[in-house]
Amino acid sequence: MIIVMKSDSTQEKLDAVVDRVKSFNLQAHLIQGDGQTIIGVVGLPLPPSLDEMFGIMPGVQTVLRVSKKYKLVGWDFHPQKTVIDLGDGVTIGGDSVSVMAGPCSVESEEQTISTAHAVRAAGATILRGGAFKPRTSPYEFRGLGERGLQILAQARAETGLKIITEVMTPSDVEKVAEYTDIFQIGARNSQNYLLLEEVGKAMKPVMLKRGLSMLIEEWLLAAEYVMAQGNPDVMLCERGIRTFENATRNTFDVSAVPVLQSMSHLPVIVDPSHAAGKRKFVDALSLAGVAAGADGVIVEVHPEPDQAMSDGAQSLNFDQFAKLTPKIKAVAEAIGRGLEIPDSVPA
Amino acid sequence: MIIVMKSDSTQEKLDAVVDRVKSFNLQAHLIQGDGQTIIGVVGLPLPPSLDEMFGIMPGVQTVLRVSKKYKLVGWDFHPQKTVIDLGDGVTIGGDSVSVMAGPCSVESEEQTISTAHAVRAAGATILRGGAFKPRTSPYEFRGLGERGLQILAQARAETGLKIITEVMTPSDVEKVAEYTDIFQIGARNSQNYLLLEEVGKAMKPVMLKRGLSMLIEEWLLAAEYVMAQGNPDVMLCERGIRTFENATRNTFDVSAVPVLQSMSHLPVIVDPSHAAGKRKFVDALSLAGVAAGADGVIVEVHPEPDQAMSDGAQSLNFDQFAKLTPKIKAVAEAIGRGLEIPDSVPA
Amino acid sequence: MIIVMKSDSTQEKLDAVVDRVKSFNLQAHLIQGDGQTIIGVVGLPLPPSLDEMFGIMPGVQTVLRVSKKYKLVGWDFHPQKTVIDLGDGVTIGGDSVSVMAGPCSVESEEQTISTAHAVRAAGATILRGGAFKPRTSPYEFRGLGERGLQILAQARAETGLKIITEVMTPSDVEKVAEYTDIFQIGARNSQNYLLLEEVGKAMKPVMLKRGLSMLIEEWLLAAEYVMAQGNPDVMLCERGIRTFENATRNTFDVSAVPVLQSMSHLPVIVDPSHAAGKRKFVDALSLAGVAAGADGVIVEVHPEPDQAMSDGAQSLNFDQFAKLTPKIKAVAEAIGRGLEIPDSVPA
Amino acid sequence: MIIVMKSDSTQEKLDAVVDRVKSFNLQAHLIQGDGQTIIGVVGLPLPPSLDEMFGIMPGVQTVLRVSKKYKLVGWDFHPQKTVIDLGDGVTIGGDSVSVMAGPCSVESEEQTISTAHAVRAAGATILRGGAFKPRTSPYEFRGLGERGLQILAQARAETGLKIITEVMTPSDVEKVAEYTDIFQIGARNSQNYLLLEEVGKAMKPVMLKRGLSMLIEEWLLAAEYVMAQGNPDVMLCERGIRTFENATRNTFDVSAVPVLQSMSHLPVIVDPSHAAGKRKFVDALSLAGVAAGADGVIVEVHPEPDQAMSDGAQSLNFDQFAKLTPKIKAVAEAIGRGLEIPDSVPA
Repeated sequence: MIIVMKSDSTQEKLDAVVDRVKSFNLQAHLIQGDGQTIIGVVGLPLPPSLDEMFGIMPGVQTVLRVSKKYKLVGWDFHPQKTVIDLGDGVTIGGDSVSVMAGPCSVESEEQTISTAHAVRAAGATILRGGAFKPRTSPYEFRGLGERGLQILAQARAETGLKIITEVMTPSDVEKVAEYTDIFQIGARNSQNYLLLEEVGKAMKPVMLKRGLSMLIEEWLLAAEYVMAQGNPDVMLCERGIRTFENATRNTFDVSAVPVLQSMSHLPVIVDPSHAAGKRKFVDALSLAGVAAGADGVIVEVHPEPDQAMSDGAQSLNFDQFAKLTPKIKAVAEAIGRGLEIPDSVPA
Repeated sequence: MIIVMKSDSTQEKLDAVVDRVKSFNLQAHLIQGDGQTIIGVVGLPLPPSLDEMFGIMPGVQTVLRVSKKYKLVGWDFHPQKTVIDLGDGVTIGGDSVSVMAGPCSVESEEQTISTAHAVRAAGATILRGGAFKPRTSPYEFRGLGERGLQILAQARAETGLKIITEVMTPSDVEKVAEYTDIFQIGARNSQNYLLLEEVGKAMKPVMLKRGLSMLIEEWLLAAEYVMAQGNPDVMLCERGIRTFENATRNTFDVSAVPVLQSMSHLPVIVDPSHAAGKRKFVDALSLAGVAAGADGVIVEVHPEPDQAMSDGAQSLNFDQFAKLTPKIKAVAEAIGRGLEIPDSVPA
Repeated sequence: MIIVMKSDSTQEKLDAVVDRVKSFNLQAHLIQGDGQTIIGVVGLPLPPSLDEMFGIMPGVQTVLRVSKKYKLVGWDFHPQKTVIDLGDGVTIGGDSVSVMAGPCSVESEEQTISTAHAVRAAGATILRGGAFKPRTSPYEFRGLGERGLQILAQARAETGLKIITEVMTPSDVEKVAEYTDIFQIGARNSQNYLLLEEVGKAMKPVMLKRGLSMLIEEWLLAAEYVMAQGNPDVMLCERGIRTFENATRNTFDVSAVPVLQSMSHLPVIVDPSHAAGKRKFVDALSLAGVAAGADGVIVEVHPEPDQAMSDGAQSLNFDQFAKLTPKIKAVAEAIGRGLEIPDSVPA
Repeated sequence: MIIVMKSDSTQEKLDAVVDRVKSFNLQAHLIQGDGQTIIGVVGLPLPPSLDEMFGIMPGVQTVLRVSKKYKLVGWDFHPQKTVIDLGDGVTIGGDSVSVMAGPCSVESEEQTISTAHAVRAAGATILRGGAFKPRTSPYEFRGLGERGLQILAQARAETGLKIITEVMTPSDVEKVAEYTDIFQIGARNSQNYLLLEEVGKAMKPVMLKRGLSMLIEEWLLAAEYVMAQGNPDVMLCERGIRTFENATRNTFDVSAVPVLQSMSHLPVIVDPSHAAGKRKFVDALSLAGVAAGADGVIVEVHPEPDQAMSDGAQSLNFDQFAKLTPKIKAVAEAIGRGLEIPDSVPA
């Protein structure tokens, strides 16, 4: 940590800062020059809010924290990239790009199972579907609840796909864990710290969606919450941030892919459906995400998007999805990765 | 609702849209002109996502929803401004501007009770203090928990101040309700719908902070969640939004005050401390908020801000706060409102 | 400037950085600790982009620039607040709050002169009005040009008001200077550096509107462009920034008022009309700006806003404006400033 | 245009609106229902600000403009995609992805010409380089001016590359036109309408960079300014927008590529260098842009980025650039486009 004193500060204020540094068993190294004094603070550990604490002391101009606030999610303590093993040969974060697909909401057995067959045939290995749905208005459809989880489990049994579904509150974690292979934490819960800790204890993989206005550092700290409970299997999902532009529902921050990968060993997934909010842009954003290096893509697919109970406007139908995965495969191969599309014919 | 068909749409597509409108027992009125057809949809009730559903039908250019998505928070069904009565003559939303003040975190009995006396003497009627703290990093101080609630209750007993404190998760609502006069829902939980419903059932007043990137309409819908459970005593707290500007921690959206008041009968509070993130701007933002018409101000005050366990950089000390309230009073009176500052001398 | 080396850097990379520092005739002071090296760079002058240059050298983790990029606009070299003297007793930046008012566009002699009389009677000392209008679409009204300037001059002759009007391009500066008392640089030209230099040479006061997504530091640097040409009379005008929120046209960043005043001696004006984009919020934002400490307010006023050729939706009529200025006066007095409203009856 | 009256409006206000509609020789069609009246306005032409004008009339709740504000840039009047022909077989907007590359600033003959040879060998067909540089601070290097243009022309003569360079002010257009093949309009000048018109008259291709907080519709209207002067050869360049995220200098809005292409026939270029601001993310963003369908990529390349006079931190060296273009080619081919890399060996 580096503390820069104001040019018009006094010796007395400097002494007070130095004394405070020593009170934490840290050392203070002074640099004088141009009428300004800089204090290099050396020693460990640094309490997390120490920079803020020094920043308001009299005579201090600014404080620069050099060390990172997170540990477990960073490369320093984990030099190998995380590969999440879901069993049965399904992994996330390895050489292949993973495709997750399915409806926004689980609406019925028929809708979910037909979708599962269709997306598996097109190359998906993981089925997405919401049983508990956060909705902006209290008057909208909120999902089938546990019945939805049962339908997802049935789809897994029939197709061999793994399952990802959202959990919204700590007291639901145990129940959702009975059914799901991956917990999804939604954007609105991205800083619901008690929920993050609860899935951290559940020891099943977690996909952490980015909050609408979450800084990348905050996102990594949210992942740190999960990992700090002992759960190593976390992945991060870019799904668009909120900006002034309204031509798309959110702004797909494709840069987050290489930025995260430079800071963290955790796999990165992109969600073009929620980012775009409009079906016609899903292809372009999927390919952009894969070209930028994403480890996976999660896409909304519905048998009849125009009849969907939620998010129909951004969902692909079976045919559109079946045309998208070969393009994903082609781009993945262009950058030296792969995607396996089964030979089998869809149900 | 109004549906605008594309200029190159066909009669067949138009018929399909009209049939769909009728399937909801709504009427479709057509306007033809300039090669474009517009459909006015008339009838009630409109399902919440109907606009999205029509927006993706073939041939549709755009859909405009005319009716509002919220009811209980709006003026249409509640033409009187809400005044929240906390008992003992303390109200929020009436002629006087309310001042809430206190430390970010309850750290100790001594710290909290001395602050309570100081802020009461300066004109505050409500004591703020966090017992459960959401923190960006898992390695930071998270509050004293129930012991913190007990200290707040003790401060209330000694000073007569009402209490506001944050509740972070549905399973804590019952316990926090034993102690608090007002539930605070923090920015990170502003769309934690299960929590909103739980405080909606608890039937104590709720202060709903704006999420960092929450649209005003979304904020009102969050308040609608609380009111839909039967709890009429909701207030909204502007605490800064996230923008590109970083000279302040957040951007204090002072326009939200008159905008909310034009849309809703609920009281509006401003939080200059979290908006600014820096102590030296708290005065200016407090006064701006009051001048814009806010019904209350919530300010962080600490006996020794430089020693605070959280948010010290934005907290006022007792003396600074005692100088602020007379300015708030002067501005409140300038716009025809008041603020009562007791004659009594602080402890 | 402080250069922080990466923890896994080498002695060789460190030497290269130190050599580079010395090549600029600056000194490098090293602090070692915890396996990391920090270099304090001492000496003057620092080339403006030096931080960027060092930031990309091998082994460098981060660079912190301690000194400010601007000089003339800051307090360090100009410890007195700037008061701009327009002659005839009209000043900006002194004890009184200045009110500038008038139509968005000069449309006719009748419209402009009747407005001038009305706003003068209500307390304005400066008449605003656009002769050259930047418009988002090439198919919109762009102002009367020089004829508009002549009408403004006539209004000045009749009322004694000073004039502010926009100049859009360097080659117009000379002509506009013949008529105006203050140059307005619009938001879209806030980083049109050749224009900034040209008004810097013209030696008439300049009001510099903030660009839609301009950081406060960039804004001060734009003002530095003007001052660097020798023109000391610059004021800054907050007119709303672009954010995700769309309930108002722009987000009025009222914090900019105290932030600017803490960094610069230049007067700060607020423009509630362009910030809000809607007439009904102009009052609240005007008062908020004054309460936050603004040195002036610029308001759009039109004899018949509903007939205005531009910006009618945000313009006040004469009666609305006459009711606003006493409120501005009351809030100004509440914070120890004033506003003089003439006794004379409007035309 | 559609005008929605408030539910509590009166017959008198409705009549006034209808009369006003008729005063523009437009027709008003009324739809009544649920206590609310909707007016469909039919007829042509609609004055550009008509929606705003009606939006503030008494009794009006909201106005929806159905027709687009732009014409020339849209598909309706120009159903063929624009392909810009620069001569000598160099085109932009056709089947192949175009690569533009070169230094931020032209610093010397040696620097520019060596770069030209290197980028041509790697597959670029157009050389970028700034002779006139907009700089945030008045104390930074601003380019070599006309000498810079001469060096670019010399590089063209030696390599056959086409040239793109920035023009900053209307009075420079003629001079820059003597040398350049493409005018670049920078982000800060994206709404400098007089400059847009001047390059519109110059009848050489124009690349219009997106302003930092420019809506896509505003961007298209800026292009409309150029086209309205008769110049058909406009391309749009996404270079990152300003958001809250600061891990990259700007947020690369890759969605802009398919969004623009759905609205306009103009070619779309991406600028990963300015978007990222950091060299290590340039590869990923280049590939993302191409995968999303961009017609070209513009990349900063410098012989010794660490010695560059501007933007060194985001510039690639020759070797890095030579490794990037084969990846661009691979991704372009994966989506059915191409990129030709010459067999010749670089100088």
